[in-house]
Amino acid sequence: MSAQLLLVECPDRRGLVHGVTGLLLRQGCNVISNHEFVDHETARFFMRTEFTGEADADQIRRDTLAMLPQPATVRLSSLAPRRVAVLCSREHHCLADLVVRHAFGEINAHILAVASNYADLGEFVGKFGLPFHAISHDDISRDEHEQRLLEAILPYDPEYLVLAKYMRILSPQFVNRFPSRIINIHHSFLPAFAGAKPYHQAFRRGVKIIGATAHFVTEGLDQGPIIVQEVLPVDHTHGPQDLAQAGREVEKLALARALKLVFEDRVFLCENRTVIFD
Amino acid sequence: MSAQLLLVECPDRRGLVHGVTGLLLRQGCNVISNHEFVDHETARFFMRTEFTGEADADQIRRDTLAMLPQPATVRLSSLAPRRVAVLCSREHHCLADLVVRHAFGEINAHILAVASNYADLGEFVGKFGLPFHAISHDDISRDEHEQRLLEAILPYDPEYLVLAKYMRILSPQFVNRFPSRIINIHHSFLPAFAGAKPYHQAFRRGVKIIGATAHFVTEGLDQGPIIVQEVLPVDHTHGPQDLAQAGREVEKLALARALKLVFEDRVFLCENRTVIFD
Amino acid sequence: MSAQLLLVECPDRRGLVHGVTGLLLRQGCNVISNHEFVDHETARFFMRTEFTGEADADQIRRDTLAMLPQPATVRLSSLAPRRVAVLCSREHHCLADLVVRHAFGEINAHILAVASNYADLGEFVGKFGLPFHAISHDDISRDEHEQRLLEAILPYDPEYLVLAKYMRILSPQFVNRFPSRIINIHHSFLPAFAGAKPYHQAFRRGVKIIGATAHFVTEGLDQGPIIVQEVLPVDHTHGPQDLAQAGREVEKLALARALKLVFEDRVFLCENRTVIFD
Amino acid sequence: MSAQLLLVECPDRRGLVHGVTGLLLRQGCNVISNHEFVDHETARFFMRTEFTGEADADQIRRDTLAMLPQPATVRLSSLAPRRVAVLCSREHHCLADLVVRHAFGEINAHILAVASNYADLGEFVGKFGLPFHAISHDDISRDEHEQRLLEAILPYDPEYLVLAKYMRILSPQFVNRFPSRIINIHHSFLPAFAGAKPYHQAFRRGVKIIGATAHFVTEGLDQGPIIVQEVLPVDHTHGPQDLAQAGREVEKLALARALKLVFEDRVFLCENRTVIFD
Repeated sequence: MSAQLLLVECPDRRGLVHGVTGLLLRQGCNVISNHEFVDHETARFFMRTEFTGEADADQIRRDTLAMLPQPATVRLSSLAPRRVAVLCSREHHCLADLVVRHAFGEINAHILAVASNYADLGEFVGKFGLPFHAISHDDISRDEHEQRLLEAILPYDPEYLVLAKYMRILSPQFVNRFPSRIINIHHSFLPAFAGAKPYHQAFRRGVKIIGATAHFVTEGLDQGPIIVQEVLPVDHTHGPQDLAQAGREVEKLALARALKLVFEDRVFLCENRTVIFD
Repeated sequence: MSAQLLLVECPDRRGLVHGVTGLLLRQGCNVISNHEFVDHETARFFMRTEFTGEADADQIRRDTLAMLPQPATVRLSSLAPRRVAVLCSREHHCLADLVVRHAFGEINAHILAVASNYADLGEFVGKFGLPFHAISHDDISRDEHEQRLLEAILPYDPEYLVLAKYMRILSPQFVNRFPSRIINIHHSFLPAFAGAKPYHQAFRRGVKIIGATAHFVTEGLDQGPIIVQEVLPVDHTHGPQDLAQAGREVEKLALARALKLVFEDRVFLCENRTVIFD
Repeated sequence: MSAQLLLVECPDRRGLVHGVTGLLLRQGCNVISNHEFVDHETARFFMRTEFTGEADADQIRRDTLAMLPQPATVRLSSLAPRRVAVLCSREHHCLADLVVRHAFGEINAHILAVASNYADLGEFVGKFGLPFHAISHDDISRDEHEQRLLEAILPYDPEYLVLAKYMRILSPQFVNRFPSRIINIHHSFLPAFAGAKPYHQAFRRGVKIIGATAHFVTEGLDQGPIIVQEVLPVDHTHGPQDLAQAGREVEKLALARALKLVFEDRVFLCENRTVIFD
Repeated sequence: MSAQLLLVECPDRRGLVHGVTGLLLRQGCNVISNHEFVDHETARFFMRTEFTGEADADQIRRDTLAMLPQPATVRLSSLAPRRVAVLCSREHHCLADLVVRHAFGEINAHILAVASNYADLGEFVGKFGLPFHAISHDDISRDEHEQRLLEAILPYDPEYLVLAKYMRILSPQFVNRFPSRIINIHHSFLPAFAGAKPYHQAFRRGVKIIGATAHFVTEGLDQGPIIVQEVLPVDHTHGPQDLAQAGREVEKLALARALKLVFEDRVFLCENRTVIFD
């Protein structure tokens, strides 16, 4: 009888915590921990309740949904490892960190496969016995490339896609197949330095801090809800290459923290923001 | 009809959140925010509930207490500014930060008076119209000195004492008059460098980080529950004086953050640890 | 015979360190510490040398200049306290921090006067015996207002102007009177959120970090060379007001660190970047 | 004609920078960058000079040594990758980080072999084609175990030993074979929590920060010169296991930063402290 999660969001109303916890008690469940938040901007209520008990999970989900003001969303989670596909390009740092954490059971996920528009990282991925699909974008259209990507990854039926420095822009059609289920790591701080050669931009601007942002992918490039932001200090002795290395270090940290939060069902979306019960 | 806080701690038991929120609802109150935590080490339950409503506060307190497993503690707070006395010695940094925040309404407290074993900071305190009591420890016993301190500060009836770099050790008798109501800021990290000349110790040890710890005072010197710890990086170019300056900066930050948390009723004690609902 | 600084910048060339240190030795001076940096982007050499000795400072300056490739800049500094005027508006946090550090001798500067477009902070400044000039911008043109500001501050003959949350944009004419001698603190990270209501922008973007940038003022608004950047973590529970409070804390830190560096002659300009010998 | 390093330490004396740079100039060398530091506690001078030129390296070393006040140390380094052996036990995090950085050329080192008192990590190490020596400590004395370790690693002729969570105490005899050439990563902050079960100690103390210290190993356990210290914030929701996970993350960061500094010849020893030219 391991713990389960009840994940609720709905319009705020008086008595929600009392109501949901009462429903669980009547089902013979025991609440282990509970987090709630009301976003005042949207008057929306969020709740993450960890509970144990032998009750019928689907019954709890339906009963909870029925008692909430609408529109509401209710999910039940057993915290089973997430089914994840990873996209990457040529940079190894985020992918390697993810694969090693996976190999030692440090993230709550099964990496099903890795796909890339370059073959470079195939050897590394292969060491860990994971399928690797090299799908070049040369000489084909973006649509065609995305089509081939989908053919490679859809058979694994992934819940989440992780873009571990995947350096191509995904079309809205592709993104919309995985709504709020694609996680990206972005060089430098959003919304600053959003274009090309960000570390050269950052160098010329003389920044004293390098950051990285892990976020959900939405149709707008690099505009999705932020999950984690991390920074490292830099100084005048750092040229563009050094800034890029600092960027790699901080990207690795930010993505790992974001995936931990998402894969433990700690992240809710609230408009273009995230509510995180950490 | 401004918000109030219900602050609960008791042994953990099934249904506590449901029970307490139900009691508030039946009194016609509206829960605005709610935080709970169960400490697994002690099986103790902590809850901080912000609510609005015209109910009789004392009735709520009594009814809540009656429904909880014992031993329980129930407090109601209107978040009225705390009545605070400050003790200091000769170093200005924490005292000045506190007095300036007070002057601009940045902390939820009324500073009633400042007492010191030196006269040095009287001029500064006087600029802000606060009473200052210089009570020298020269030529008198510790007991006698503490007696005179009490004579100076007790008439103000303070809820909290803040030790803003008060450099004398308080006797257990003195400490026990203000149980869990004295907040201290300690140079460097506890439990490291607990003795004299901590920055010379830190220099000789070649530390690369300087820290400060804000904590509640208990009978054991510098052993009380930690509220906030902060750090600053240092390097080999910092001599003992530079480390001390870094220490002052980080002490100021740590104490200010700790006082904000305590004065907003966000800090619970759990054995020698703190539970903080931030 | 206290220490002096020799501050050199010029095109890079073989033998510069050897040449400058040799010149000091021949004058009977003793080098205490030495920092150099070559910016590879511009092939420009920077050197900050602390030395003691009874030599004629002006002679050293002229001889050094004569031996360097041109265009070169040579300054000698005795690290005398800087003559500083402060501009502010209504927000107290940076001004108060600066005034208190000044009062306790924590910065290498004499604050000569404070001027503001509002009267609010006059009472605070007055407590510390500093002149305060309230110069309203109501009903007058920007030019006229700047003219009155100059009439108030020029008689003090300040070397540096510190904009401690001065919320008006200075004209290029005004800025050019104090080239690289005006230091500003900017809400949030440059270049992000450069416009109005930055904390509302940051809230809607769902940022997880709040930053502040201390920089020299140039003609381009908020585009001048960055001296210090600092950050604080925030989360979904922070509304725009909380973000603004976090912003105030981090602005205070960033400005204080920047002023320490500038007033100790540790900051060189290199195009739109800073070289900092810390 | 790639860059070389001249690394000097000796008693401080007037004219050292001038003298050393002059010697390089006379040999036709070009100084690219230069860092010096005088430790006032010991009156000892440290210098790291990067230069190019076709001169005879050994001649430079001997001439430099001859001109310095004694006792002096002069080293020349071509920044060739360091020859490194790694010791580990059962925890993977530091070892895996190091092996992956090595695989992608991110550290200036050749890992020659890994030895461990457990077999657990052999499979991981093997994926990367590195020799792995499992040398159990069961049923043999410490001396005997160290003897077998040495038999395994000495044939590789390593310059440095990295203790990547090697959980056995090394004897002074063993340590003295690699003076200032063994780098260790220590759980939590030195000197705090130096004994067993540090995360349980930290939990009961209610710490709000978890740290890690990378240091050179000397005869005194965990008392050697500190190279890097890093921290992560924690709170009351972190049990001992969570603190340990935070500890692993921060250990990984601290060790990686320390190895980068050491393997780029940026670290000098000064009594029990480090001077780091970063």
